[in-house]
Amino acid sequence: MRTYDLALIGFGGVSRALAELISSDAERLTRQLGFSLRVVAITDLAFGSLVQPDGIDLAAVLAMPRGADFSALPGGSADPRNHDVIQDCPADIVVEATFTNPVDGQPAASHVRWALESGKHVTTTNKGPVALHARALTALAEERGLSFEFEGAVLSGTPILRFAQQMLPGLTTTSVEGILNGTSNYVLGRREAGATLEAAIREAQELGYAEADPTADIEGSDVRLKVAILAQQVLGVDVSLASIDTQGISGISDADIREASEQGLRWKLIGSATRTDDGGVTAAVRPVALGEEHPLAGIAGATNAVTFTTNLLGQVTVSGPGAGRVETAYALLSDIIAIDAATRTSERAAAAELVDLVGVTL
Amino acid sequence: MRTYDLALIGFGGVSRALAELISSDAERLTRQLGFSLRVVAITDLAFGSLVQPDGIDLAAVLAMPRGADFSALPGGSADPRNHDVIQDCPADIVVEATFTNPVDGQPAASHVRWALESGKHVTTTNKGPVALHARALTALAEERGLSFEFEGAVLSGTPILRFAQQMLPGLTTTSVEGILNGTSNYVLGRREAGATLEAAIREAQELGYAEADPTADIEGSDVRLKVAILAQQVLGVDVSLASIDTQGISGISDADIREASEQGLRWKLIGSATRTDDGGVTAAVRPVALGEEHPLAGIAGATNAVTFTTNLLGQVTVSGPGAGRVETAYALLSDIIAIDAATRTSERAAAAELVDLVGVTL
Repeated sequence: MRTYDLALIGFGGVSRALAELISSDAERLTRQLGFSLRVVAITDLAFGSLVQPDGIDLAAVLAMPRGADFSALPGGSADPRNHDVIQDCPADIVVEATFTNPVDGQPAASHVRWALESGKHVTTTNKGPVALHARALTALAEERGLSFEFEGAVLSGTPILRFAQQMLPGLTTTSVEGILNGTSNYVLGRREAGATLEAAIREAQELGYAEADPTADIEGSDVRLKVAILAQQVLGVDVSLASIDTQGISGISDADIREASEQGLRWKLIGSATRTDDGGVTAAVRPVALGEEHPLAGIAGATNAVTFTTNLLGQVTVSGPGAGRVETAYALLSDIIAIDAATRTSERAAAAELVDLVGVTL
Repeated sequence: MRTYDLALIGFGGVSRALAELISSDAERLTRQLGFSLRVVAITDLAFGSLVQPDGIDLAAVLAMPRGADFSALPGGSADPRNHDVIQDCPADIVVEATFTNPVDGQPAASHVRWALESGKHVTTTNKGPVALHARALTALAEERGLSFEFEGAVLSGTPILRFAQQMLPGLTTTSVEGILNGTSNYVLGRREAGATLEAAIREAQELGYAEADPTADIEGSDVRLKVAILAQQVLGVDVSLASIDTQGISGISDADIREASEQGLRWKLIGSATRTDDGGVTAAVRPVALGEEHPLAGIAGATNAVTFTTNLLGQVTVSGPGAGRVETAYALLSDIIAIDAATRTSERAAAAELVDLVGVTL
């Protein structure tokens, strides 16, 4: 049985959910996946760092109270020591789950780079390094024969990027558009039901959808990062954040809502990227009043969805959760499964090359 | 460059769309897929049979008028000769696209069996052999080291079965439910807009959604076949058609429609299969009035959709076309792409085994 050793960089909600899954459901996971997982390093701004090459007791660290740090444990320190831990710990896979920095993607982008440079695969749900540095980091991973996976950077565990890569073979995708932020979709639904913007945001906060500062959700900058990722990963074209015309939902008036409703339309905050005739892409984030025949019109509550427009199949849509601790931890797990599959494939390919080389006929 | 030779069994709308795609878009397809396709045999109740090992001129046969047959062509006959052609023609892949027989799946099931027994991979969009004989035919394919693919048997080219198999790794799916028939969903939408059942069916017929005899669409037997396929392919449990409690949409009254609408609910014909505690499955086809928070409530017009309920990710839904000539032909193409991938994987696996056997360390 193969075991992958993990380093968890950032020990917040998502990493903790992954650690809970690994420690509480280990037997089922191992049986289902054909490999087992062990955490050998954790770093965190609050807890410091912990490196234990024989495997960390996850139940024990999960039970540590807020305010504690790792300094009293063997291999522990109150200092995160991110660079040294990422570079020197004996992990096979680095799980990058620090905060999203939408300006330059740091320090997460450096975490990813250090991991790849020291021969470790990477999975992350962090939009920053993916939206801003995916091409360079993917090239670095390929150069080193490693995987850089980030399914959770767009729709948490709902498999949007892998769907585009693997489920639409032989098709040409001409545009991708989606409801990419659960908070703003929830707020728009409450606005249709008569709530004011302020009341709807407050409700979203009470339900745990919205941050204390909801600006990134409401004004579209969270969606803009995701549109940049979709444009590159689905359409293969880099777009700068500045080139994405971005408008949030705070400008939608009561009259706008009423008029749309009278015409059977529903306001949705749509992030989109569309291929242009010259090989480029037009990308935008803006509220659109959709007719009920549009595949995104019926996406309700905090659900997210992405619609792919293709040549032979027309429009295909995937919808599901776009946030949540466990749902996002599942994105990391699905990336680890993909890393395992890629590892096995490249081992078989190496064997096939060897057989070719010695000229054996099968 | 690898070439796969195809035999098209049944030369109706879907097969013809595939032939058009292969003949008109050959260069782009070959570039995109890394292999090329050639049709070496065609059989059809009306046209008879045609076997040309060096490749059939598809543009010429596509241009043949209704009422003509293949007897005047080299390798042609006015007789379909299905058994002999399937068994003896030099195809790598048999494309089964004859009519669906919901009672015993014949003659399509025999076509599939003859193909596999004579060493050919199979792709089909035919619900009959899949709903009624998938387990035996899949076992036969595995025994012979061949592929039996049928993505198009449920939602035409919308990749539902492959999504369940490949996009949800590490998850346990507890139930699968869907809008699996475009005609009945279109009719329900028109009923909500005030049309009578009869008028709505007539409209669906005029738009080409409904057959001259719409019974299978309206009374749920088409959906029942698809539920049997989903239960087996997604949940791994065989259910007999007789055990699927089936109710269509003709019993929904104007009052039912009005009452649902007043409560913000929408009638949908839902096919579902749910895992039970004893390891079995409860399967049903019935109209359900869904609240707008349900992921299938907003699926409009002739669109189809399937919702998977999972342990870690909750509900994930895929929606898209469930019918159409080109969309269904794409399902066949996606199966052929999967057959190519499986062929390459098994070649690499054989190489890896050989390397293992001689004890080389990579």
